[in-house]
Amino acid sequence: MSKRLVVIGGGAAGMSAASAARRVDPTLEIVVLESTGYAAYGMCGLPYYVSGVVERAEQLLAYPPGFFREQRRIDLRLHATATALDPERQVVRYAQDGEEHRLHYHALVVAAGGAPVVPPLPGVDDERVFAVRTLEDAITLRSLLDAGRIGRAVVVGAGYIGLEMAEALHARGVAVVVVELLPRVMANLDEPVAALVEEEVRRHGVDLRLGARVEGIRSGSVDLDVRVEEETLTVDAVVMAVGVRAAASLAVGAGAATGPGGELLVDDRMRTSLPHVYAAGDCIAPWHRVLGRPAFVPLGPAANKTGRVAGTVAAGGDARFRGIVGTAVVKVFDLAVARTGLTLAEAEAEGLSAVATDVVGRSRAKYHPGAEPVSVRLVHEAGGRLLGAQMVGTEGVAKRIDVVAAALQAGFDVDDLTALDLSYAPPYAPVYEPLLLAAQAAVAADRPVLTEV
Amino acid sequence: MSKRLVVIGGGAAGMSAASAARRVDPTLEIVVLESTGYAAYGMCGLPYYVSGVVERAEQLLAYPPGFFREQRRIDLRLHATATALDPERQVVRYAQDGEEHRLHYHALVVAAGGAPVVPPLPGVDDERVFAVRTLEDAITLRSLLDAGRIGRAVVVGAGYIGLEMAEALHARGVAVVVVELLPRVMANLDEPVAALVEEEVRRHGVDLRLGARVEGIRSGSVDLDVRVEEETLTVDAVVMAVGVRAAASLAVGAGAATGPGGELLVDDRMRTSLPHVYAAGDCIAPWHRVLGRPAFVPLGPAANKTGRVAGTVAAGGDARFRGIVGTAVVKVFDLAVARTGLTLAEAEAEGLSAVATDVVGRSRAKYHPGAEPVSVRLVHEAGGRLLGAQMVGTEGVAKRIDVVAAALQAGFDVDDLTALDLSYAPPYAPVYEPLLLAAQAAVAADRPVLTEV
Repeated sequence: MSKRLVVIGGGAAGMSAASAARRVDPTLEIVVLESTGYAAYGMCGLPYYVSGVVERAEQLLAYPPGFFREQRRIDLRLHATATALDPERQVVRYAQDGEEHRLHYHALVVAAGGAPVVPPLPGVDDERVFAVRTLEDAITLRSLLDAGRIGRAVVVGAGYIGLEMAEALHARGVAVVVVELLPRVMANLDEPVAALVEEEVRRHGVDLRLGARVEGIRSGSVDLDVRVEEETLTVDAVVMAVGVRAAASLAVGAGAATGPGGELLVDDRMRTSLPHVYAAGDCIAPWHRVLGRPAFVPLGPAANKTGRVAGTVAAGGDARFRGIVGTAVVKVFDLAVARTGLTLAEAEAEGLSAVATDVVGRSRAKYHPGAEPVSVRLVHEAGGRLLGAQMVGTEGVAKRIDVVAAALQAGFDVDDLTALDLSYAPPYAPVYEPLLLAAQAAVAADRPVLTEV
Repeated sequence: MSKRLVVIGGGAAGMSAASAARRVDPTLEIVVLESTGYAAYGMCGLPYYVSGVVERAEQLLAYPPGFFREQRRIDLRLHATATALDPERQVVRYAQDGEEHRLHYHALVVAAGGAPVVPPLPGVDDERVFAVRTLEDAITLRSLLDAGRIGRAVVVGAGYIGLEMAEALHARGVAVVVVELLPRVMANLDEPVAALVEEEVRRHGVDLRLGARVEGIRSGSVDLDVRVEEETLTVDAVVMAVGVRAAASLAVGAGAATGPGGELLVDDRMRTSLPHVYAAGDCIAPWHRVLGRPAFVPLGPAANKTGRVAGTVAAGGDARFRGIVGTAVVKVFDLAVARTGLTLAEAEAEGLSAVATDVVGRSRAKYHPGAEPVSVRLVHEAGGRLLGAQMVGTEGVAKRIDVVAAALQAGFDVDDLTALDLSYAPPYAPVYEPLLLAAQAAVAADRPVLTEV
């Protein structure tokens, strides 16, 4: 009898794990349990499907239905929700079509992903309140938009998902109010950088309520009344985007070691503290190279990479995950907003003696039409080690942040950054890249920086 | 009496040197000798001025005339051509307005730039034969175009300057023939990559003659007859773009040590072998970090950086140049064409045991409209050290190459590349970046690579 690998979760991490396992062991039986009706789709694409930028939901699927079964001999079971885990007996139980099933495994990969944080508010379970964490969610929301049934909406939360959803709804002609408990948008950016994003959101006519609390939602037959402080907003839909937590309860219930936020802890081969149980994706806290400890940063690239490592090791191969540095980018209307490493606030919270250096460079040679400002904040130890960067601009930002991600992996200090031999041509960059200007300013500290010649 | 720094050359390197020197020593007398009528302009912008993308020639000037004299107290002498150097007596001679002058210096920075290679062809001194290496050249060519006097042109050389000029002329409605001695375009790229560029040039209707030799130019009163092999091309102008060499003859005549191509050799503080004589910019061979020896790669960013170091050290300060890795990008019609490190051909010529890994990724998530192919070639030791990369695409290429430039500076191997935590969002990148796909393929060598989920 062949060995069996069970994977809980058919998202990016789970399907990467299953595919990697198949590559290592052609004879392995591989079962994937996915609680929704879709597997292996681009979750980060959901706002673009809602907005209509992506026309059809099927476009978000990485592979056509049937591909995994037929091409990779992966037994993908949809609408199959894992309900219990017995690591002693190596058994997982799951529910499908109203029936309970049990599966023995030789190895288990937990890739259950993240779950939206839903605050315990009155009315939050109304079907017009969306989390937009699954393709089903997005399909329902999109169909309501297509039917012209959403003219007004509240988005709760001004983090990156909240702002992406606000933009998507705005693009569909919806009057959007974003309500955020904190006094600023994008809590994962430093305030001066977040202020640029805030300006962009307001500039597009989105009604942004900062430092405001949603007290409750009253479901009418036609409308939803959203109570925000003293005011009542009457809308057609609410999108909850207050945060994501690790969906790790099954493994946690079975005794798996977790981090402070309840994420599964794994070693660099994605082994949990439970024997034969691996974990990957948004339900773990992977190693953060700059922090030097695990950190919960649920994003797609690490989900793919950790899934691949988990599947490879679970199937008897060898692989290691070398950690994240906290790189992320998001489009907010015309701005690309990128970060990597630590913000100044994160560095200070970590007890590091950090400073920030801010410059505004240009995306192209200044004489080239279309040159746009690129705002760069470098976070670093005074005159020393690079800790992170944030960048905001309308052109060339997403891939510019990647240079800093590479520099963080290399352990560069700011002086190393000044030495970078970066590409230059008038349509693509100024001769002194914004990043080089920032690095020079960081090194020069209080002396004036030589301007570009 | 204050000390005097003399800088030969008012280009990027020379003006960077003068400016850096001023910052180090407010009392220093600083004289810059510039042989043309303009200083501190963006030479890389010349094709964009010729094409009309940049409207006015003055836009290419980094600073308004008078800025250096008034703001930085730099004695900038235009139309001043250095003619002799006596390193023993620390004297430089120069000609200006038909008169000979001599200047004593305490320190000298040679930043005379590069000079176009002009093959000794009959007719090459006709005034309708351009090198487009100076702003004057570009202004003359542009004025002829504006006057409608160029309908047909030959560009000699299909390197990056030749192709930029071909595009510029084509944009002005000129029927362009590019004649290249080699059987391919862009000799600084590997052939499969250059083939993509060749296709792009032909696609836009440029008549590209590869492996063809210009035998001579016959000047008529109206036309120029350019003899190419057996054929005669009758045109209104010729642009020579067969290469650039270091304009180092003055220092070489005075005994300065040079590299194989006649470029000045300097240490990391830009000191030549002559006492009190520094050099910077396109007339030197700076340290190449990947080659581990000096190399002649005349490009703007290194000119600025080495100029700054030369000026700082010449004025009594301290600075070091940490070398280049050979990063360059050029726009050829709709393509960005980028390279860094070594090509496979360069690595092999260096005696390195190198292989190339080619992949074609996408610039955005595949479901996002506007996702474009990004061709990546990684050059590396088998399973080992990263040596270089080439990338071609219509979107996001210029700054993607910079990640590899950072990786080369860090001394990464291909496995380090696979670990990079790069930014991802559907409008800007696929979850598996083209570079990560290439790195995975390079590591996997002959086993199949896991496709993106």
